Amino acid sequence: MSGKRLTHFDESGAAQMVDVSEKAATARLATAEAQIVMQPETLALITEGRAKKGDVIGVARLAGIMGAKRTADLIPLCHPLPVTKATVDLEPDADLPGLRITASVKTTGQTGVEMEALTAASTAALTVYDMCKAVDRGMRIEGLRVILKDGGKSGRYEVS
Amino acid sequence: MSGKRLTHFDESGAAQMVDVSEKAATARLATAEAQIVMQPETLALITEGRAKKGDVIGVARLAGIMGAKRTADLIPLCHPLPVTKATVDLEPDADLPGLRITASVKTTGQTGVEMEALTAASTAALTVYDMCKAVDRGMRIEGLRVILKDGGKSGRYEVS
Amino acid sequence: MSGKRLTHFDESGAAQMVDVSEKAATARLATAEAQIVMQPETLALITEGRAKKGDVIGVARLAGIMGAKRTADLIPLCHPLPVTKATVDLEPDADLPGLRITASVKTTGQTGVEMEALTAASTAALTVYDMCKAVDRGMRIEGLRVILKDGGKSGRYEVS
Amino acid sequence: MSGKRLTHFDESGAAQMVDVSEKAATARLATAEAQIVMQPETLALITEGRAKKGDVIGVARLAGIMGAKRTADLIPLCHPLPVTKATVDLEPDADLPGLRITASVKTTGQTGVEMEALTAASTAALTVYDMCKAVDRGMRIEGLRVILKDGGKSGRYEVS
Amino acid sequence: MSGKRLTHFDESGAAQMVDVSEKAATARLATAEAQIVMQPETLALITEGRAKKGDVIGVARLAGIMGAKRTADLIPLCHPLPVTKATVDLEPDADLPGLRITASVKTTGQTGVEMEALTAASTAALTVYDMCKAVDRGMRIEGLRVILKDGGKSGRYEVS
Amino acid sequence: MSGKRLTHFDESGAAQMVDVSEKAATARLATAEAQIVMQPETLALITEGRAKKGDVIGVARLAGIMGAKRTADLIPLCHPLPVTKATVDLEPDADLPGLRITASVKTTGQTGVEMEALTAASTAALTVYDMCKAVDRGMRIEGLRVILKDGGKSGRYEVS
Repeated sequence: MSGKRLTHFDESGAAQMVDVSEKAATARLATAEAQIVMQPETLALITEGRAKKGDVIGVARLAGIMGAKRTADLIPLCHPLPVTKATVDLEPDADLPGLRITASVKTTGQTGVEMEALTAASTAALTVYDMCKAVDRGMRIEGLRVILKDGGKSGRYEVS
Repeated sequence: MSGKRLTHFDESGAAQMVDVSEKAATARLATAEAQIVMQPETLALITEGRAKKGDVIGVARLAGIMGAKRTADLIPLCHPLPVTKATVDLEPDADLPGLRITASVKTTGQTGVEMEALTAASTAALTVYDMCKAVDRGMRIEGLRVILKDGGKSGRYEVS
Repeated sequence: MSGKRLTHFDESGAAQMVDVSEKAATARLATAEAQIVMQPETLALITEGRAKKGDVIGVARLAGIMGAKRTADLIPLCHPLPVTKATVDLEPDADLPGLRITASVKTTGQTGVEMEALTAASTAALTVYDMCKAVDRGMRIEGLRVILKDGGKSGRYEVS
Repeated sequence: MSGKRLTHFDESGAAQMVDVSEKAATARLATAEAQIVMQPETLALITEGRAKKGDVIGVARLAGIMGAKRTADLIPLCHPLPVTKATVDLEPDADLPGLRITASVKTTGQTGVEMEALTAASTAALTVYDMCKAVDRGMRIEGLRVILKDGGKSGRYEVS
Repeated sequence: MSGKRLTHFDESGAAQMVDVSEKAATARLATAEAQIVMQPETLALITEGRAKKGDVIGVARLAGIMGAKRTADLIPLCHPLPVTKATVDLEPDADLPGLRITASVKTTGQTGVEMEALTAASTAALTVYDMCKAVDRGMRIEGLRVILKDGGKSGRYEVS
Repeated sequence: MSGKRLTHFDESGAAQMVDVSEKAATARLATAEAQIVMQPETLALITEGRAKKGDVIGVARLAGIMGAKRTADLIPLCHPLPVTKATVDLEPDADLPGLRITASVKTTGQTGVEMEALTAASTAALTVYDMCKAVDRGMRIEGLRVILKDGGKSGRYEVS
């Protein structure tokens, strides 16, 4: 990593929104994941609720999708991008116990959508926390990371 | 937890913004924490940068504070609250290696500010990811949780 | 109505956000309603979907609740208010055929929440349109109005 | 309509932002309309006001145009689109009595702008309500619908 | 000014949203002003337009009022405040030549509204620039400053 | 300038978002500048602070960059554009005394980015005011204007 530098700063150290105007607008894809770990009783409330008591997962999914669209508002040096697809999946996992969250975002643009995927996963996880905090304050969000990125000059990145 | 239910849904299972209009407006405080784990070389770039090559921590702190103010926009059933204080701290920790993030938020309001503190910590962590992703795509955000909540009827909650 | 004038304009005709700083912060409540009229087949898709094919009503409800929080961003001269409760109900009605939408909003503030209730109902209805437009472009939103307003100096207003 | 399904949900019924990344970016146009029905005295206040007492129509027009730009923030599964034109027209109609609202939006994008046109018309109508509610609480918004859509694979749609 | 320090930073130099939770919620008022200087022909277009060709001043006024409500979104360390009144006045002045802008904002809150008044004046001025830039690119915004601040512990401040 | 008219209004004088859908999407660049004039002691606090007491300039720079992304939200008739680069520079100038602000924005789009550059410079200046107002209420923002515009049919404009 010697010689590497952070492109979000210029030579003098000033933060900047990096110039992507010369980059080609290509198809971009990114997937992020996270887990939210909770008491088994909390997970039971969520999984039972899907039927009729209240759809925590449905609300969190929608929050995640909407969060993807707000990314450039939240992350200071992030370029605004027209999201062309966003999905958020939340799967109960009794071993955590908790929910496994996967968010995928696509665009046709001049820079990648990792931040959009991460923001979607993070917002979905925070929404689960919000809805369940009255019964389980100790929930934790773990393992928020990018697991797939494709499109653009730097090529495909995939966590094996 | 038997008999517990999720207050963000009514009896029929419909999501709702819970009625807090009868609750007293009292001083509320919450603190959240998270870690962002990275390559040691990435941490070195960040810590060196503070001096002159670019202040990753300063940018992330500001993003976190601004994120706290956007919480009710992001989290669907979260009540809007007038944040009266917000601080975000990011400490390098060579053992992670990475940054330890702590966010504290205060309000005088009818409901708590856990979501604001979590959103601040999460936004700060995502901003670090954004600024360093060109050199380290494998960074992970871990342990995002509430460690302190005070004010309101439910009393003080503190992770020991 | 002789002698009445629109308070959102001053004597010279300039638009203004009316001064409410001398008004008492009291409990305020408003309810708005609307209908979205559609083909019977579209309504069938929505009502069947609740079970497993996709919850149009759940998505629209959430959009309505979030819309209530964005009211002062959308309506130029509307005062920002801390919403303390928001509910949105969508009931299938085979006679329309379509959905009957009811949105209720509460605050403790210096002015009423009619606009928040109307914006919630309107946003929920538009979201139904968005989700179903691929199968039924001719849907219409009808009868968007305030049916209840309470709190504040002007007293209770209720459509009989 | 047999066999039709709602594309905003996947096979499992999960809400999603539909993938439009393979669709061509073409010129898109949509027009929506609505009426706001009021007391004749309220309409008189509005029409007289244009001259010097306050331009309700001008304020509502602007709110509608700005609303078009906020569409993807409000409608959960709506794709963000760069609006390239937005007009909102409000015509007094003594027969309603009230205002007839027409909103037209254009873009060059991968999906249509019906939602933008509907949101513009709706926001304009809500703004009229806000400005006149002190003199006429019983106003109703009626007939909000798409009357023209052009561009894209599905061809031209026009209400005759 | 010896010994003074900037309260938006803590002892270590970290930016923070200052804690105002112990401050009393009192009536607050601020007024800001600015001028936008232009070619005399541009001013003539604006002043003629009020009658029928297009109301630049009306649009700018509304933009300013809405801008006041967005202040805490734009200014990183600014506390969100419920604006209870906002007015923006734009007066033609042939001697500039241009427009003199005055914005006044009130709240009942724990901190002042200078930033809201400045943001309102600035947004109104930028909107004039936007509407007239096709005929006069050389317009300049001058003298944006606070001329009155009242309420709160620090007492009344008024530019003589 | 005879015969000139303001394109943001149609023939009847109604405000409109101008139709740019037929314009080519080309590389666009704009630079704006402003000064913020203050007491010499205030400037000293800012310049000393860079080292360790608090980085006013860094916070203002970031606010300016984020402001550029919010332009179409603030300026009613401004087209939304995908910013591809944004930089904000703030240089201390003892002769003002104060800070000289320069903001540059790029896009590939159908209309120019003057408004984005102006909004960036203005937001940065307002942020400096916010951070220093406790020690110097009399600060003034002066000379906010476009100094460079390039790309698009109207050609290059540069202040000599």
